[in-house]
Amino acid sequence: MKFCSVCGQPVALRVPEGDNLPRHVCGSCGTIHYRNPKIVVGCVPEWQGRILLCRRAIEPRRGYWTIPAGFLENGETLHAGAQRESQEEALAQVEIGSLLAVVSVLYAEQVHIMFRARLPEQRFGAGAESLEVELFEEARIPWPDIAFASVEFALQRYLSDRAAGLEGLHFTEFERRTGMGPKYSGG
Amino acid sequence: MKFCSVCGQPVALRVPEGDNLPRHVCGSCGTIHYRNPKIVVGCVPEWQGRILLCRRAIEPRRGYWTIPAGFLENGETLHAGAQRESQEEALAQVEIGSLLAVVSVLYAEQVHIMFRARLPEQRFGAGAESLEVELFEEARIPWPDIAFASVEFALQRYLSDRAAGLEGLHFTEFERRTGMGPKYSGG
Repeated sequence: MKFCSVCGQPVALRVPEGDNLPRHVCGSCGTIHYRNPKIVVGCVPEWQGRILLCRRAIEPRRGYWTIPAGFLENGETLHAGAQRESQEEALAQVEIGSLLAVVSVLYAEQVHIMFRARLPEQRFGAGAESLEVELFEEARIPWPDIAFASVEFALQRYLSDRAAGLEGLHFTEFERRTGMGPKYSGG
Repeated sequence: MKFCSVCGQPVALRVPEGDNLPRHVCGSCGTIHYRNPKIVVGCVPEWQGRILLCRRAIEPRRGYWTIPAGFLENGETLHAGAQRESQEEALAQVEIGSLLAVVSVLYAEQVHIMFRARLPEQRFGAGAESLEVELFEEARIPWPDIAFASVEFALQRYLSDRAAGLEGLHFTEFERRTGMGPKYSGG
């Protein structure tokens, strides 16, 4: 951020009065521009024990597998966002279940919020941002080709909970990019 | 948003190619400026059965009671954000517990995420944004003077769960401002 989105004049990084963190402040109109984490919302859709995954048609991590997920929009609930992403990326109408995972992706300034979900019928396909969409038995999940660390975490917890007959809520955080976790910018 | 924060030139609202929602797009450098919901994080701190509330020293809803809560910062986990807000607003060092409530405040473009919390010792006070901070027995909670609908929701669910010996996770949404719910801009 170099310019004020209100008046178009240059901004400078400084700590506003009464604050304790540097913010982008306009030198002309005085507007303080806060920057906060964005929410990525998604779900793990299951159909008769198998998991629906999408192979990404876009960067980052083009060609790698992920669950339906993307940025939450203004005016949209988390449940509606997860449903919309499933429709857009996997042409699938899912029923959202319990909350599965909340992952703070600190280096990307994102919070990934992932639900369990049910695919009521075996209808899906590749949306514009997917190369292909497929149902995977647990033993066939392509772990080395999962696009993001947060998705790997959510899938692991989903499966271990399912094996134990539980539906837990799991928190974790990633402080820095791993081999598999470039900055998420999908959907 | 009227100007591009990257180059300072005017932006226009239009639907970018491959998208389906209008975004602020720069007419000069082409940058697409996405706007997404912000996260407000907070907690309900309990000490020996009593609930810690803060009376707001700032607008909106100055003079009304709330739980410690505020905008999640970049680089901060949800748990750390809830702890920080408790320190800033109530000078209280809390232990964060289970997730209590997730409230989509659609009109304000915010998601309020609230945890249960424990105050390990009876030490607290009014931070810079609080007029006073007090522990309330359940029967003394000032319901007509609670600042925000999302906080009322969280407190109600906290108390009904506690009475039932549960720790549930509760979702709700507010589509429009209620009498008690002006746009949150605290902390």
